[in-house]
Amino acid sequence: MTTPFESLKARRAPDWQAYCEHRFVRDLAAGTLPEAAFQHYLKQDYLFLVQFARAWGLAVYKSRDLSEIRQGLDSLKAIVDVEIGLHVNYCVSWGIDEAALSKLTASRATLAYTRYVLDAGMSGDLLDLHVALAPCIIGYGEIASWILRQPFTRHEGNPYADWIAMYAGDEYQALVTSELEWLNRRLAGVDEQRMDQLATVFGDATRLEADFWQMGLDLT
Amino acid sequence: MTTPFESLKARRAPDWQAYCEHRFVRDLAAGTLPEAAFQHYLKQDYLFLVQFARAWGLAVYKSRDLSEIRQGLDSLKAIVDVEIGLHVNYCVSWGIDEAALSKLTASRATLAYTRYVLDAGMSGDLLDLHVALAPCIIGYGEIASWILRQPFTRHEGNPYADWIAMYAGDEYQALVTSELEWLNRRLAGVDEQRMDQLATVFGDATRLEADFWQMGLDLT
Amino acid sequence: MTTPFESLKARRAPDWQAYCEHRFVRDLAAGTLPEAAFQHYLKQDYLFLVQFARAWGLAVYKSRDLSEIRQGLDSLKAIVDVEIGLHVNYCVSWGIDEAALSKLTASRATLAYTRYVLDAGMSGDLLDLHVALAPCIIGYGEIASWILRQPFTRHEGNPYADWIAMYAGDEYQALVTSELEWLNRRLAGVDEQRMDQLATVFGDATRLEADFWQMGLDLT
Amino acid sequence: MTTPFESLKARRAPDWQAYCEHRFVRDLAAGTLPEAAFQHYLKQDYLFLVQFARAWGLAVYKSRDLSEIRQGLDSLKAIVDVEIGLHVNYCVSWGIDEAALSKLTASRATLAYTRYVLDAGMSGDLLDLHVALAPCIIGYGEIASWILRQPFTRHEGNPYADWIAMYAGDEYQALVTSELEWLNRRLAGVDEQRMDQLATVFGDATRLEADFWQMGLDLT
Repeated sequence: MTTPFESLKARRAPDWQAYCEHRFVRDLAAGTLPEAAFQHYLKQDYLFLVQFARAWGLAVYKSRDLSEIRQGLDSLKAIVDVEIGLHVNYCVSWGIDEAALSKLTASRATLAYTRYVLDAGMSGDLLDLHVALAPCIIGYGEIASWILRQPFTRHEGNPYADWIAMYAGDEYQALVTSELEWLNRRLAGVDEQRMDQLATVFGDATRLEADFWQMGLDLT
Repeated sequence: MTTPFESLKARRAPDWQAYCEHRFVRDLAAGTLPEAAFQHYLKQDYLFLVQFARAWGLAVYKSRDLSEIRQGLDSLKAIVDVEIGLHVNYCVSWGIDEAALSKLTASRATLAYTRYVLDAGMSGDLLDLHVALAPCIIGYGEIASWILRQPFTRHEGNPYADWIAMYAGDEYQALVTSELEWLNRRLAGVDEQRMDQLATVFGDATRLEADFWQMGLDLT
Repeated sequence: MTTPFESLKARRAPDWQAYCEHRFVRDLAAGTLPEAAFQHYLKQDYLFLVQFARAWGLAVYKSRDLSEIRQGLDSLKAIVDVEIGLHVNYCVSWGIDEAALSKLTASRATLAYTRYVLDAGMSGDLLDLHVALAPCIIGYGEIASWILRQPFTRHEGNPYADWIAMYAGDEYQALVTSELEWLNRRLAGVDEQRMDQLATVFGDATRLEADFWQMGLDLT
Repeated sequence: MTTPFESLKARRAPDWQAYCEHRFVRDLAAGTLPEAAFQHYLKQDYLFLVQFARAWGLAVYKSRDLSEIRQGLDSLKAIVDVEIGLHVNYCVSWGIDEAALSKLTASRATLAYTRYVLDAGMSGDLLDLHVALAPCIIGYGEIASWILRQPFTRHEGNPYADWIAMYAGDEYQALVTSELEWLNRRLAGVDEQRMDQLATVFGDATRLEADFWQMGLDLT
């Protein structure tokens, strides 16, 4: 049986595939991605996380009850109290120190995706916000699992092995499962006209996330 | 020397005094406040806390950098992870169980103050939001200190002694000091026209907080 | 057959009746409402219109396409380009000049209802916004029609005849019909859980609009 | 004497120059811009106008008084009641009919700039919103004037002569002057820290507007 989120993806299948199987992803899997491309991506991903935190702040504001507030707060804590710290450390291991991170200028791709998410969430409702975040939250999980299955993936000595392992790992995959459950529950009650709106948000957000990969490649 | 926040209060002195020295506050200090009035206040204060959490979610959304995000998140965690739990327990000690709390209808005074704060913060900036919250955050600290100094305050056997002690206590007063520092730093850079806008927000919010006291009395 | 909006009203029947058949409305119908009560209402209604304009600005921001933008803009123009001017003139005929209007302080009831609407619309979607405005837009039309049918209504020499005639008149009733059509179309696609949320918004907004009547009486 | 807005531009001089003297602009001035590039730009500019209308709706929501509401409404009417119609007609003259406009998919550059403006305005205040719109409102006026002064500009038989004439014309230049007055008045009261924030908004918005030109070129 097709879940509502699978139906949503099916409506924007070419965009979704172009994002999930992007050359940046393939080269990362093969271990051939230029380091500078990855470093550029890592730096911008730091700025992305800051805006991602704002998006969860927005989710808290948009909440109608304490359980929705708690859900938003948990995500906010995960980013601000855990992920940003891990990301900073990971950046250091790639030769990018915290001082450099604090002086970055946001690239166009970073501005585009983050502000699209924030406006979709503000002008729409909590479901629009989650759908706009799905290419990131759900997408990273799918991408890591997909990488593990590809014949061209280099498992030994891949400089990006840590990145792949993190998103393919149990902890992140559990988060994806939980987000999928929430999305499928909410999408189940949605009529056709609303599904059209959400498909637009989903498609736009997916294209903008693909640009985030492209940004790394364009640098080199 | 007058701090910027003291100047702000001075512009709305009658409203501020009417709020801080409200009959609800005086009767609570004297221990003569009817229990039903206090219980009604406690119940609505629970609903207030839920909206207060939304306001800090909004503060996170409105943040321009990670340090502002962290400030909003700390306040959000304080409410959702600590204060709401303490409040629920305190309500139980007054004979109001959690099931009752979850079924409450928001009173007009609760709707009025909370939505005013949220709209002031959304349509204005982070400073508008903090100024709209000041009658609550700063006010409760001033009120508890004021109560301790009044000749009519009943210190022994006052049924509301716990409430007074909490807001007069070191932990809450430290929070007030920290909020005052933030407000004074931000208000210092503000020109006259902006100060007029903030005085309107501050005065409106103070009047609506006074109604929150009145709501308790009107019940009885 | 029951329309979706009638179902919504039925869920909050006591609140709706208390609002539509409020003593302020009855006394206005009978022509016995103290002039000072009506003048206070008129002054605050001016401040209400300013916030009402902000609500239609919000509707434009929340729009997903040009036809939604045009709908919001039409309402915005109706208020800013027409109604506010008529209201100012009407106030003059009641001895309230424009200088007085520009110096008014918003009453608690005005702050409460207007900010509730704005927050419901911002945190929810366009349907939440319209539902929060329904007690005003639809309510005034129902109230004027109801007044015309009551045996105690004074048709000759009623000082409030102009007010009644305006809202009972064809132009305003056409606007009500059009808003009802929009609401019924949108509400038709809504599931039970969403209807619960909307009933809360509708009930809260109706209670706060009733306070707007009460505000006039309390003055006297 | 340097106006506040000139100071703001000076802080982001390279971004501003790269935008105003972009190859798209130069080729348009010389009349050598490929038609397909211009047509792609025209189509996306239609989608831009729809979001621009949302931005003025946001300005109305953000207003603190009736004069601010009127300013936002005037801009909103200019776009929805005038400019969109003119744009549709202009598109027709370039072989793009209205049915095609209604089926467009927003390009990344369109999503990026429009959502950046909307989030800057929502999370900041009215000044942030106007500063984010300045590359568009002020920029188009400067660009058209600059084109008229360049030696390489083709004045006779330039297929883009209408476009240049519109933005260099008295009507549009008067709008630019009026917007500059508003900006300079507001920026005058701003302290150094706030100016830093606004320079970030201005620089980001300018880069994203430059991408809007680039989008046209990349197509070809």
